[in-house]
Amino acid sequence: MTVRKFAMTDASFERSPGQDGEVFAGNVVDQRHGGPITIGFGRYGPDQSIDVTLAVDDVMVVLEGRLSVSTASSKASAGPGEIIYMPKGQSVTIRSHEHGAVTAYVTYPHWQEALE
Amino acid sequence: MTVRKFAMTDASFERSPGQDGEVFAGNVVDQRHGGPITIGFGRYGPDQSIDVTLAVDDVMVVLEGRLSVSTASSKASAGPGEIIYMPKGQSVTIRSHEHGAVTAYVTYPHWQEALE
Repeated sequence: MTVRKFAMTDASFERSPGQDGEVFAGNVVDQRHGGPITIGFGRYGPDQSIDVTLAVDDVMVVLEGRLSVSTASSKASAGPGEIIYMPKGQSVTIRSHEHGAVTAYVTYPHWQEALE
Repeated sequence: MTVRKFAMTDASFERSPGQDGEVFAGNVVDQRHGGPITIGFGRYGPDQSIDVTLAVDDVMVVLEGRLSVSTASSKASAGPGEIIYMPKGQSVTIRSHEHGAVTAYVTYPHWQEALE
């Protein structure tokens, strides 16, 4: 694979696995491309909440809106231009707020393969 | 390591290795933290240009300004909210434009270790 540029419009969004809320993920680079990492965009509707146990190391860069991520012992909140790092193995609740949120994400290794 | 949130103000910026221009990188997560990936913020002054051969897979999310990345056979340009993926082994020229740029980056594996 060569150098590539991606915009949100390049992503095909699908509902986040095991969720029935308005939380969508759209990979633009993943296991199909032969590299070690998955890259994509995330889209959260207003006031959504999902519980996830991280099968991979997951980095979210907030592009729009705000997300709060809580664990049993911590809480972090990030707005545009800020990063939330969720190490593999952590159990988290990710919440969006009244305006929803848009993220760019990178996972190592590929999150879809880790869920299989 | 638990879940962490990072803002640009958490980064200690250093001049990009081997460069003498106004291009700075500030890791917020790296080999010191025990995980597989490095996370950080990048800052480019106006009209800078650096040549890099990628020792790692490198993802840049443009937060402010614009960056253009060219290889011998391709050119990609990204603005706020867009992603540039530079696979390991690629030789690239990264250019900023009149307003400079700010990025969030993720590398696998750790770029500082790969340069040693």
